[in-house]
Amino acid sequence: MDPQAPCDLLILGGTHVLVDESMRDISDGGLAIRDGRIVAVGERAALEQSYRCATVIDASGKIVMPGLINTHTHTPMTIVRGYRDDLSLNEWLENYMWPWEHEHVNPDTVAAGSQLAIAEMVRAGITTFNDMYFYAMSTALVAREAGVRAVVAEAYAEGGPHDFDYTLAGTAELVSTFASDPLIRPTVAPHSLYAVAEEQLAEMARLSERYGLPLHVHLSETAGEVQDSLDRTGMRPPAYADSLGLLHSRTIAAHCIHLNDDEIDLIARRGAGVSHTPQSEMKLASGIARVPAMLEAGIAVGLGTDGAASNNVLDILEEAKATALLHKVVASDPTVLDANTVVRMATIEAARSLGMGDEIGSLETGKRADVIILDTDAPHAVPCYDPCSHITYVMKAADVSTVIIEGRVVMDGRRLATIDEEKAMSDVRRLARQTGRQKAGDSG
Amino acid sequence: MDPQAPCDLLILGGTHVLVDESMRDISDGGLAIRDGRIVAVGERAALEQSYRCATVIDASGKIVMPGLINTHTHTPMTIVRGYRDDLSLNEWLENYMWPWEHEHVNPDTVAAGSQLAIAEMVRAGITTFNDMYFYAMSTALVAREAGVRAVVAEAYAEGGPHDFDYTLAGTAELVSTFASDPLIRPTVAPHSLYAVAEEQLAEMARLSERYGLPLHVHLSETAGEVQDSLDRTGMRPPAYADSLGLLHSRTIAAHCIHLNDDEIDLIARRGAGVSHTPQSEMKLASGIARVPAMLEAGIAVGLGTDGAASNNVLDILEEAKATALLHKVVASDPTVLDANTVVRMATIEAARSLGMGDEIGSLETGKRADVIILDTDAPHAVPCYDPCSHITYVMKAADVSTVIIEGRVVMDGRRLATIDEEKAMSDVRRLARQTGRQKAGDSG
Repeated sequence: MDPQAPCDLLILGGTHVLVDESMRDISDGGLAIRDGRIVAVGERAALEQSYRCATVIDASGKIVMPGLINTHTHTPMTIVRGYRDDLSLNEWLENYMWPWEHEHVNPDTVAAGSQLAIAEMVRAGITTFNDMYFYAMSTALVAREAGVRAVVAEAYAEGGPHDFDYTLAGTAELVSTFASDPLIRPTVAPHSLYAVAEEQLAEMARLSERYGLPLHVHLSETAGEVQDSLDRTGMRPPAYADSLGLLHSRTIAAHCIHLNDDEIDLIARRGAGVSHTPQSEMKLASGIARVPAMLEAGIAVGLGTDGAASNNVLDILEEAKATALLHKVVASDPTVLDANTVVRMATIEAARSLGMGDEIGSLETGKRADVIILDTDAPHAVPCYDPCSHITYVMKAADVSTVIIEGRVVMDGRRLATIDEEKAMSDVRRLARQTGRQKAGDSG
Repeated sequence: MDPQAPCDLLILGGTHVLVDESMRDISDGGLAIRDGRIVAVGERAALEQSYRCATVIDASGKIVMPGLINTHTHTPMTIVRGYRDDLSLNEWLENYMWPWEHEHVNPDTVAAGSQLAIAEMVRAGITTFNDMYFYAMSTALVAREAGVRAVVAEAYAEGGPHDFDYTLAGTAELVSTFASDPLIRPTVAPHSLYAVAEEQLAEMARLSERYGLPLHVHLSETAGEVQDSLDRTGMRPPAYADSLGLLHSRTIAAHCIHLNDDEIDLIARRGAGVSHTPQSEMKLASGIARVPAMLEAGIAVGLGTDGAASNNVLDILEEAKATALLHKVVASDPTVLDANTVVRMATIEAARSLGMGDEIGSLETGKRADVIILDTDAPHAVPCYDPCSHITYVMKAADVSTVIIEGRVVMDGRRLATIDEEKAMSDVRRLARQTGRQKAGDSG
């Protein structure tokens, strides 16, 4: 007679930050995983009594929390991390980013850049990322191999490295390849309202509808984009997007910086999610999104890193701190976006923004087992009065010791289990030497 | 016949970011140290040929740069790191910080808090810090023992843990104890214009004059402070400070957020330095300092962390990134505060702001040998197109591998050589349990 239920993985000890409705912590907690799902979470003693397990991770003195979610990135752009900085947006895009992409982006460079990005993100405790780039099958296969949860789109932009037919065929292929894959979720991603013609925007909206796919788009990122939309369509971007069927409950809109009250209301009514990427938005001087107002309106606002070319790292803990700090000083109110709220934006609100709020983003029974463990045994992390304050203001990517995705240990003791990071680094170093040497703007 | 000169320490290889006038990098550099000074810096091959040395550090593939300088902090406040966040400034100060300080600050708690802060700062590549707190002899002794360069003041504030006579006697004792110490520089620090009576402000100005000491003061940190100064003195803070002899070439003024054009001009003419602490200023919603205008006026603006209670880490690389990002978005101009400028603010401008520009802040022959080495062999740090961009936007405290201060290796391979960090952590954990349990505001 064995009163204990079997499980695959048991985490014992540590402060468990559940990110449930009540933002409850368990100070000496335990968590049991079976078949990729969380089957129990509670007091350590209760878990120890109820479950037997061959693999036990001791999290004593550490923080256990849901995996971080990166709601907007362009993983292959690690190859152009810091390629050029401190330029006006147009000069940066037109003289550096677009020429580089036009010349060098192909399935192989995408695979290499994504591989490095995934290694970086796992090390930073990111268990799910929402990617928008070209040749997405490369990214999806690399993510699946690494065991990382990925929302990937075969993106389309005029002048991009492949044509619209490729986008449609690529999307169909993603859908059929990953139909029953628990980790990879295909998406539809028109780059933006200004980089895709109206007819093709409408067709991508229908594609999202037909397959029930999320729709990922840059929206209202700059004041120039708003003016351009008014000039071309007579509508500001949200209204134009809505008129084409692009704004609905499966939409994740990146940036949403230049919104008026009516537009916040519209996005809330349509049930669309928003990705806030504060560091990229600050670095490109795009503006400051009205995050407190969006949250107030009930919009699911998740955190994102944007691509490594404009950030220059893929690190949700950095974005969390930047979010908490930026909006306080902008509002002249230090109570704005408190630590609990920011932790939610990095986890459960991010999951909701991607339409995955029932599956990931919290440590609750039945959810997919995406769990990270943070080490607090370092001078910068002592003492700890409140775990959510610590996560928001103190913890760094390098403090992430263990990463579990879909119940699989992807990193433990800072050692990556599924990714050859030496190869990822050397591949990207080689590509950077080959493709980054002749900088378009330097000769022009 | 030996054509090679002896030296104590030789760093060979790596990209040497000199932070000299021309912001020159040497891509395969070398640096020789003797008697605590830099005696040569140049190409690796030339250094290898010219110097022989028992101790050689291989920096191949890494970034070698001047030690980072923290121009404004309160080291003992690591004990109240994250004690309370997300509160209005007055509630935070009056219900939490001041009651805690009044009850628990003494020479022993100061020593423990400073010890932990120094461990944290060395790990973050900080080789010099400018401290303002009480019972400063404790901090100075801990810094000297750790081999870290410290600018320390026996601060005074009304209602603080010790009286004004203690401040005067403590300052005299610092001066006599460290008269010939290369690492410890005593300072005079009236907390602020609002927390010290006029007569005592004037006396501290005379103290700074008599001993030729730097003068460290909080200035124009909040809009409320400006209004209060007008109400009480008829002058805004800079004019009031100037009227009392507090504004001169040895002054380092922290924050300087609420300045008008005339005040920027006044500070520039007086030759005072400014400490910019962006993360603390954002978190407390104090406002946004006019950093580009101050630099334009020729003011030496260095970066600082403020205390761990309002930040919540002591990490100049974080402040550097926050500085670059914040001022771009505020100015709606991504070319503002480029990476080279920000690296200067973390090093040579910080040194100038402390009146130490001839001694530290750059890798130049004759300067004190405060040198750090950053490891770039990690997924988030690949590739590297430009070292100053990397330092500003990519490098993290955890990437600092080696720290040399006054020619002495204080950390190598992330192992601290002069600090017992386990003891530092356990001492502060114990103090946090003893003093942080009864939170003033919780019972009130």
